[in-house]
Amino acid sequence: ELVAEVEGLFGPKPLAGKRLVLTAGPTREPLDPVRYLSNHSSGKMGFAIAAAAAAMGAEVELITGPVALATPAGVKRTDVGSALEMHAAALELAGGCDIFIGCAAVADYRPVAANEHKIKKDGDTLSVEMVKNPDIISDVAAMAARPALVVGFAAETRDVEQYAKGKLARKGLDLIAANAVGNGLAFGTDDNQLTLISKDQTQVLPQASKAKLAEQLLAILANRLSEH
Amino acid sequence: ELVAEVEGLFGPKPLAGKRLVLTAGPTREPLDPVRYLSNHSSGKMGFAIAAAAAAMGAEVELITGPVALATPAGVKRTDVGSALEMHAAALELAGGCDIFIGCAAVADYRPVAANEHKIKKDGDTLSVEMVKNPDIISDVAAMAARPALVVGFAAETRDVEQYAKGKLARKGLDLIAANAVGNGLAFGTDDNQLTLISKDQTQVLPQASKAKLAEQLLAILANRLSEH
Repeated sequence: ELVAEVEGLFGPKPLAGKRLVLTAGPTREPLDPVRYLSNHSSGKMGFAIAAAAAAMGAEVELITGPVALATPAGVKRTDVGSALEMHAAALELAGGCDIFIGCAAVADYRPVAANEHKIKKDGDTLSVEMVKNPDIISDVAAMAARPALVVGFAAETRDVEQYAKGKLARKGLDLIAANAVGNGLAFGTDDNQLTLISKDQTQVLPQASKAKLAEQLLAILANRLSEH
Repeated sequence: ELVAEVEGLFGPKPLAGKRLVLTAGPTREPLDPVRYLSNHSSGKMGFAIAAAAAAMGAEVELITGPVALATPAGVKRTDVGSALEMHAAALELAGGCDIFIGCAAVADYRPVAANEHKIKKDGDTLSVEMVKNPDIISDVAAMAARPALVVGFAAETRDVEQYAKGKLARKGLDLIAANAVGNGLAFGTDDNQLTLISKDQTQVLPQASKAKLAEQLLAILANRLSEH
């Protein structure tokens, strides 16, 4: 219904002439040449958004961690491994774009480089020292050439909405798309459910395919862009 | 040549009537519901051995971590995630088999369970406490119903042969297949090069496809079984 309404306003290509940059998938944080820390993000939500945005007429730059997904038609893809690589690619590509969406499940910490010998083995236990990764989306939101809209995702195991509201303010975002992990939703699955939280509004997109949710989210963002 | 020689001795099914159990791929060690520690093992070497063993007439049980590979024809597959799960599956299946091959890249440590609150955040750094995983192959080699042959793999970044010799003695194995990681070999690639080290012999299998190396290794093992 909303998509129909937006199509009524903008035609079938509501993102024509807009440039959208997004991140997707997990990151891999190397411990040494063979081991890494990662997470269960499949990249499906981000790839669904990239596909829908291209279909809606946007020029799409997709920055993705390691996933087993084909590049959607019309999408320009940049493959990265670690959060540091994703951060560099995002800051290079996001400047002056219309919409930036941080959909990747970025590792918040990375192991201290193995060659700095910070892994201490102590009998049957071992302690891996980690340092904070840069915060990609808040750095994008603070760019001189800030995207018109900066949208973050929050995947939490509990207190989803409360956490998302904190993140929205702290990181200077326009919108947070929050989802609950588990119950067959989010990571690795085809269905999801999103709660969109902005400064003045909370809107629930009920459980649907990630493709459908991507369309609904982008229709809302196209609408917001037109109000800018 | 060796394969031809073994076929001469045993016919085209030199492992007919034999039961082979092997592990393959990486393990995933959970930090919390979404994050895990893993490694770059593709599972290709293990799957190549499973395929070759089935073609040579063996009854094959393949215990594998998360990989993007199809199950070879005639192979019975058990999927596992963590080293603890792989350990349990190996001890359940290996008893009394003819050949056990530990080809998986098993994590030597796992994070202490997240719900034990051992992850300490301290400003911009974090320390992940890890504990030693059980040693699957040495536990298999110490089983009451020990497999006739227990074969380990060693993937090291340096001092491959020296390390393999230590591992052979310490873990009570019959043979170590050692490979050097890097230079386009081993992890994720289709080619490999193996040095087979036993108590009284070191034998180099020159660089070849993993399928070819699997056949050569199994021909040697079939030969050893016949000497038992």
